[in-house]
Amino acid sequence: MVPFGKYPERGIRKMGEEALWNALNDAGARPKDIQTAYCGNVGVASDTPMMAAQIALEQVGILKIPVTRIENACGSGSNAFRDAWLAIQSGIYDVALAFGIEKMTKMTMEQMKIMASGGGGDKEMEGSMGFFAVGIFGMAAHLHMDKYGTTREQIAKVSVKNHFHGSLNPLAQYGKPVTVEEVIASRPISDPLNMLDCCPFSDGAAAAILVSPEAAKRFSGTPVRVLAAAQASGTYTMETEGMVSETIQRAAQQAYEMSGLGPEDIDVAEVHDCFTIAEITHYEDLGFCKRGEGGRLIEEDRTTFGGRPVVNPSGGLLSKGHPLGATGVAQICEIVQQLRGKSGKRQVEGARIGLTHNGGGFRHGDGGCTCVHIFEA
Amino acid sequence: MVPFGKYPERGIRKMGEEALWNALNDAGARPKDIQTAYCGNVGVASDTPMMAAQIALEQVGILKIPVTRIENACGSGSNAFRDAWLAIQSGIYDVALAFGIEKMTKMTMEQMKIMASGGGGDKEMEGSMGFFAVGIFGMAAHLHMDKYGTTREQIAKVSVKNHFHGSLNPLAQYGKPVTVEEVIASRPISDPLNMLDCCPFSDGAAAAILVSPEAAKRFSGTPVRVLAAAQASGTYTMETEGMVSETIQRAAQQAYEMSGLGPEDIDVAEVHDCFTIAEITHYEDLGFCKRGEGGRLIEEDRTTFGGRPVVNPSGGLLSKGHPLGATGVAQICEIVQQLRGKSGKRQVEGARIGLTHNGGGFRHGDGGCTCVHIFEA
Repeated sequence: MVPFGKYPERGIRKMGEEALWNALNDAGARPKDIQTAYCGNVGVASDTPMMAAQIALEQVGILKIPVTRIENACGSGSNAFRDAWLAIQSGIYDVALAFGIEKMTKMTMEQMKIMASGGGGDKEMEGSMGFFAVGIFGMAAHLHMDKYGTTREQIAKVSVKNHFHGSLNPLAQYGKPVTVEEVIASRPISDPLNMLDCCPFSDGAAAAILVSPEAAKRFSGTPVRVLAAAQASGTYTMETEGMVSETIQRAAQQAYEMSGLGPEDIDVAEVHDCFTIAEITHYEDLGFCKRGEGGRLIEEDRTTFGGRPVVNPSGGLLSKGHPLGATGVAQICEIVQQLRGKSGKRQVEGARIGLTHNGGGFRHGDGGCTCVHIFEA
Repeated sequence: MVPFGKYPERGIRKMGEEALWNALNDAGARPKDIQTAYCGNVGVASDTPMMAAQIALEQVGILKIPVTRIENACGSGSNAFRDAWLAIQSGIYDVALAFGIEKMTKMTMEQMKIMASGGGGDKEMEGSMGFFAVGIFGMAAHLHMDKYGTTREQIAKVSVKNHFHGSLNPLAQYGKPVTVEEVIASRPISDPLNMLDCCPFSDGAAAAILVSPEAAKRFSGTPVRVLAAAQASGTYTMETEGMVSETIQRAAQQAYEMSGLGPEDIDVAEVHDCFTIAEITHYEDLGFCKRGEGGRLIEEDRTTFGGRPVVNPSGGLLSKGHPLGATGVAQICEIVQQLRGKSGKRQVEGARIGLTHNGGGFRHGDGGCTCVHIFEA
């Protein structure tokens, strides 16, 4: 991946080029080794709404092959990775590229309006009622607090943990630790969530190369195994009991079944902490704790270094940044480095099994696209 | 598919619902039979830039499964079909849905600007120079005329043929035949192309259900075989000698190799006639005639009923309409009906092998995404 941040002067070309070379070099692959490519890109906030994938690939000389842009709101990156995985599974290809790229700074007012007015959801049904992401998560926070006694401090501590993790990650957009007090005193956004409970707008790109076990032998890079690639979409029902996501549960269940593993086997996880409260409910939906115990998990430091699983060692969306289409792939970059033992100061000791959870879009409060992947060193 | 047209009062929900039920009923399938779904949707002209696929699927009760939106400009629909095909090839699924949906009428001025200013291409490199689709095809027409002696009348005759075909298609947006004189007298758009050389803006949706050979036995519908599914993207080079598309040639070559067939075996084809001149160059790139002979092919009535292959019996984009993400899937709907012998007044007699060509996006004048599929009765 490339360092996430605000790069008003860098376009799709430049960010894509850097991430793609990073992936090629990491794998010991050349542009001509890539047989098919999938790109996660939302594009709503970009002046390149189409063809961003081809433009980026062209910069490194990846030409002529099938190039498919995947858009599934904030879940685009992992959706692209999963389709690249399916392409390998098909036997038609044995080297596939998954990447994600997003340009979000320098949005026009019109683009802002689209993003704000249910752009990631169902404008007709939800946008018209003023539903949008941070509003939904604000309600979820209240529900979780009311039902399970989750405290404002517990919720804020997710931001504290992830900003601390991010301070150890040179690729993170925000490298400064924050305190619970600072989170609670930051600018109100959607009660009870404040500015430091929310991930930022970011520019960024990330890339991963998938190979069949046989093809892996042709490259010098250190591969990790994909044990599971699961995807699910939402349903009508919004369980109001503290923001249960049936979609995440279903994707996780599939991933655990595919891998023959359970939540207790996960050493390290990157989850979609678009807002602090989200990470707490994800703990529960992914099975890292029982329903309602997410607040306690963060309070007791069980998801930071020394706990298990360590969640968002990269800093997560909150600190590392959230360039929509790149996020799902960047999570995978982090897990790959962790499983290789190459994460430096933020290395999770002995990490052997890693999980990523990335999702996007909301329909009736549940995910439009959720992917869960499990990897083995 | 649903009849293409201008439906300012119908949203993504309503059009999607109708196309999806049409496909399910045609196949003798129920919503719960669908295991994974791919949707072609460009969305730039819609007020539902994301989640359109999930919203449409929800209307017919297709829930919880992986839903992937594919965007590759005007090639989105066939790209979605090909990824559904790959999903079947992977062995992970044996029933997959490919559909396309697009809402283009009621565009805002901002959306119009995006569409016009290189929205389907590379804004930085091409959009900034004023390159956009009809401009490129206008130049291609001049090049073809200069190099091969193709006449204005030959080019206009593509519109005449396709509007005649469309007049036999109750699903076409424009059902009225036109004459060469009317095409040449219509409003100038990009010299030498006039209004009747251009496809319209359309609203529409189309859907197809893909199954493994084994799973096909579970359904009552009449399947056709997918013999080839090929995809390619563009290169730096724009051959200026009459708008040769290397990308289309490459996709066609792959499709012919996969199927063990050649252009001489094709009985009926739906090709991407976004502009009249495009159909003429497609003849050449797909191998239906030699380079430079496309004009003669249309002049001698060799691509209408009685000729071989019959090209765009549906009326093509010019007459049937072009709701971007739906187009590639709608082409496949037409070919399926043709191969079943169920196309009524526009039936191509004895059609046994059919081809679709759909593409979108331009980079340096060549396709960003081109898919060629070959089908057998």
